[in-house]
Amino acid sequence: PANKKLLILPGDGIGPEVMREVRRIIDWMDRRRSVTFEVKEGVVGGAALDATGSPCPDETVAAAAEADAVLFGSVGGPKWDSLPFDQRPELGILRLRKDLGLFANLRPAVVLDPLADASALRPELVRGLDIMIVRETTGGIYFGEPRGIHVNEQGRRVGIDTEIYSEDEIARVARVAFDIARKRSRKLTSVEKANVMQSGRLWRAVVGEVGAAEYPDVELQHMYADNCAMQLASRPKQFDVILGGNLFGDVLSDLAAALTGSLGMLPSATLGAVQPSGKRHALYEPIHGSAPDIAGKGVANPCAQILSFAMLLRLSFGMDEDAKLIETAVEKVLAGGLRTADIMSTGRARVGTTVMGEAVLREL
Amino acid sequence: PANKKLLILPGDGIGPEVMREVRRIIDWMDRRRSVTFEVKEGVVGGAALDATGSPCPDETVAAAAEADAVLFGSVGGPKWDSLPFDQRPELGILRLRKDLGLFANLRPAVVLDPLADASALRPELVRGLDIMIVRETTGGIYFGEPRGIHVNEQGRRVGIDTEIYSEDEIARVARVAFDIARKRSRKLTSVEKANVMQSGRLWRAVVGEVGAAEYPDVELQHMYADNCAMQLASRPKQFDVILGGNLFGDVLSDLAAALTGSLGMLPSATLGAVQPSGKRHALYEPIHGSAPDIAGKGVANPCAQILSFAMLLRLSFGMDEDAKLIETAVEKVLAGGLRTADIMSTGRARVGTTVMGEAVLREL
Ligand SMILES: CC(C)[C@H](C(=O)O)[C@@H](O)C(=O)O
Ligand SMILES: CC(C)[C@H](C(=O)O)[C@@H](O)C(=O)O
Repeated sequence: PANKKLLILPGDGIGPEVMREVRRIIDWMDRRRSVTFEVKEGVVGGAALDATGSPCPDETVAAAAEADAVLFGSVGGPKWDSLPFDQRPELGILRLRKDLGLFANLRPAVVLDPLADASALRPELVRGLDIMIVRETTGGIYFGEPRGIHVNEQGRRVGIDTEIYSEDEIARVARVAFDIARKRSRKLTSVEKANVMQSGRLWRAVVGEVGAAEYPDVELQHMYADNCAMQLASRPKQFDVILGGNLFGDVLSDLAAALTGSLGMLPSATLGAVQPSGKRHALYEPIHGSAPDIAGKGVANPCAQILSFAMLLRLSFGMDEDAKLIETAVEKVLAGGLRTADIMSTGRARVGTTVMGEAVLREL
Repeated sequence: PANKKLLILPGDGIGPEVMREVRRIIDWMDRRRSVTFEVKEGVVGGAALDATGSPCPDETVAAAAEADAVLFGSVGGPKWDSLPFDQRPELGILRLRKDLGLFANLRPAVVLDPLADASALRPELVRGLDIMIVRETTGGIYFGEPRGIHVNEQGRRVGIDTEIYSEDEIARVARVAFDIARKRSRKLTSVEKANVMQSGRLWRAVVGEVGAAEYPDVELQHMYADNCAMQLASRPKQFDVILGGNLFGDVLSDLAAALTGSLGMLPSATLGAVQPSGKRHALYEPIHGSAPDIAGKGVANPCAQILSFAMLLRLSFGMDEDAKLIETAVEKVLAGGLRTADIMSTGRARVGTTVMGEAVLREL
């Protein structure tokens, strides 16, 4: 069978160190001959700025479009903080999402059993928590035009962004969320500010229409974004699948992730549409950022990056068994008591990035 | 001295029941002759829709403009949920904010000592929590034009909102936040998505300029909204004063409020500019909504409405002592063990709205 083409974009900060642990898992899979990957590596974010002058060079976009799946690290850091807006490292991920049409960002917020005590919430409120957030990632206020800072007639600066959603953009990401809900508890919560925003009104209407016409078996609940934040922070287990636009999805998925207390454990996937050829662009990345404060110290948690790779195996290559193998290995290592600094608690053994990666490999 | 003119707008749901308890405190203050209020009552929200056909009739706006301070209950409920967008009860509060120029919404998120166990967070993370969120409330995506739902050339619906902030709008609310920070721990966190939004870039720049020029003694920190949500949900005590635009302020202040676990306890103030006459429009309202599910049952917590009145006495009438008196009375009632259903915990005495109100009155 054709090789599986993988593009690896380590990016900045802790990106390269945690990616190294994934490379070791890939090597192990290669040695086992269970599968052969054709791995390419590219530059993105600040690293790409330094190397090419652009946070997302055309070659990176082309390589990503060519690959069957992209494994992304993280971008950004103080070094590039004062650059002009059109050179910020974040463009690395934003351009990839937009140019590859990666519109459906899947962000699980899961509390693994050994980590229930890592959450800021009382353990009984988060034990067994398993939420999937589906966030739209190619539309909304992230890309809407007009946008910019201009000077008005009074000589004063004015900053403008446009939040814009078409019914097709809403419907296609809603279908992704409904499909996922159907395979889980058949409950979907759709989030907006329909009481204040016109795009929110349309969002609520279209999600309702798609649900009524195509997913009558899924229970649909509409919730305002402010209320959703409150509910997440007080009774998170009421949720199963949450659907939101680009901006609310950003804030609420980070909130849900933080509630688990183990940001360093959480993967994500961002999917495009299935093309007539059957191919589907997909990018996988940890929820956490580039964490410049701990970069290069060898203390970062590689699990989110490793679990992102497991998600890639499952969703892009249908390799459910291998994905499960990796996920189980990670859980076993945690159950055995190893902890990186971010999820450390008393009575556990604190280890660095490499030891954690090695332990996962050993379990495999 | 001239009477203090107060406009009371109970609104919908539990609004009227909790407002009744404030009326009793006002009557008591009148009897004590400590001060005489000239109290008017008006309609707003669904109640106004039913009575006048408009969620915010001109008479209500005029009475609010005439008053020295407005005490607002809450608006909305299932009865009015299917009305057209320009008749939704929320317009009651939105129009008052806009027409009276109430641009600075102050939302304390405070954990009172007797209630540390009401939070979903582990008690040690929230005990003593005392955050003040300053939210801009007359600009941003709530009011920006163009906005609406239209049909494009392909015959598809498109929903549009405009986020727009001028430097003057940003600077004036920033000054309110800096002034408050100066009286507290001299630490201000300003929140936006400057990495994605142009209005966020301007927000960050202007807040920075105001800080550098006028408040060099206040430590200013910029934070992305998604990160702020994460930080609030994991280490809320790192914050003192948080400043945000209309939309982020809405979501983050509700999040912070929920973290306290005692939404039914939290007041808020929304202030206009100080006019040349010295007058300053101001509206006070609980953080909680109209809670239609428990309306009319006599179980709602009147404390947030009572504490909103205390905030009114302090900020609009400079009656610090009376405000303190009311706040202390509420704390004593809680310390004595009385709890409404929303903040109930084992070993406490569960009471309804009236008993709670009476207990506060007795303490006074
Ligand atoms: C880096 C940033 C542009 C990005 C976003 O806001 O989408 C990040 O916060 C995320 O959620 O992936
Ligand atoms: C009722 C609604 C329009 C309002 C808002 O979004 O501002 C409310 O959520 C609030 O925070 O006061």
